Amino acid sequence: MPIVQIDMFEGRSIEQKRAMVEKVTQAIAETANCQAESVTIIIREMPKHHLSKGGKLFSDK
Amino acid sequence: MPIVQIDMFEGRSIEQKRAMVEKVTQAIAETANCQAESVTIIIREMPKHHLSKGGKLFSDK
Amino acid sequence: MPIVQIDMFEGRSIEQKRAMVEKVTQAIAETANCQAESVTIIIREMPKHHLSKGGKLFSDK
Amino acid sequence: MPIVQIDMFEGRSIEQKRAMVEKVTQAIAETANCQAESVTIIIREMPKHHLSKGGKLFSDK
Amino acid sequence: MPIVQIDMFEGRSIEQKRAMVEKVTQAIAETANCQAESVTIIIREMPKHHLSKGGKLFSDK
Amino acid sequence: MPIVQIDMFEGRSIEQKRAMVEKVTQAIAETANCQAESVTIIIREMPKHHLSKGGKLFSDK
Repeated sequence: MPIVQIDMFEGRSIEQKRAMVEKVTQAIAETANCQAESVTIIIREMPKHHLSKGGKLFSDK
Repeated sequence: MPIVQIDMFEGRSIEQKRAMVEKVTQAIAETANCQAESVTIIIREMPKHHLSKGGKLFSDK
Repeated sequence: MPIVQIDMFEGRSIEQKRAMVEKVTQAIAETANCQAESVTIIIREMPKHHLSKGGKLFSDK
Repeated sequence: MPIVQIDMFEGRSIEQKRAMVEKVTQAIAETANCQAESVTIIIREMPKHHLSKGGKLFSDK
Repeated sequence: MPIVQIDMFEGRSIEQKRAMVEKVTQAIAETANCQAESVTIIIREMPKHHLSKGGKLFSDK
Repeated sequence: MPIVQIDMFEGRSIEQKRAMVEKVTQAIAETANCQAESVTIIIREMPKHHLSKGGKLFSDK
């Protein structure tokens, strides 16, 4: 019953998200040895000024 | 001092959220044996294409 | 399909956790108007020195 | 490689967020004894009716 | 810069986790169209009595 | 009422954590213009084989 949370920049299309959850689910099912049906994925989007690395917002890089 | 995060589909009214945090807080206080005042709840909403089960987006089900 | 994450101090018994997930699930199903079967809850435990309020660890209060 | 998630009320300016990630990164690097460059921070914003304390939404307080 | 959090039952080997992060990273890089190097993954493990579905702990199922 | 979650490698002392929550709280209070008393921080620790960057576990780097 893996629960996956993905925080990423906004801007991906529905098609990209559809492919992403399909492939990530498959990757987890294969490697964690569980059923694909048991994998839950939450996607959250953020603007570039809501993520920082090294103390710097990505909107400033 | 339980901290609760609830990710759910968008679309509930303020009245529903008000009732939800009241009842969830009460449920935790009673069973975890702590004061209701110490329970914090964060609500996050998502569209149906931001949640998947079994590799399939809920917007596609 | 609400997904709930509860971070709380360690020390509750299995009986308390069993009651907690039952009552929290019921509280969400009733107020968010969804099926109890669709509610997922993750519990995480922490020692008192892993939570702070106002800049002070709970182990120091 | 600390990963930090900050959930807070909406309404802060970009300037405030820029200062926040800079200072929080510095605070962690100094105290956890790691490089500032390795600190990742995610900011998430919520309206007042998405946070509760003691079973009461902040929009109702 | 996707940040991924995976909560799953304890019990997988290091080899399984190594394969999991490799394949999940690749799946995200391909579908979200970003560099594999930018993908961060956090794994968290839990016992069966720390997850519930439908109000029932997995240790009771 | 900012709620902060910090995931980091295990191994820091209580003294380091005490200093960390004090300084991070102060950094947020100053920049987000809120009271220090309203800042909550959760610390979570992980071993090096529970974090990956670029598809590689830190225990393998």
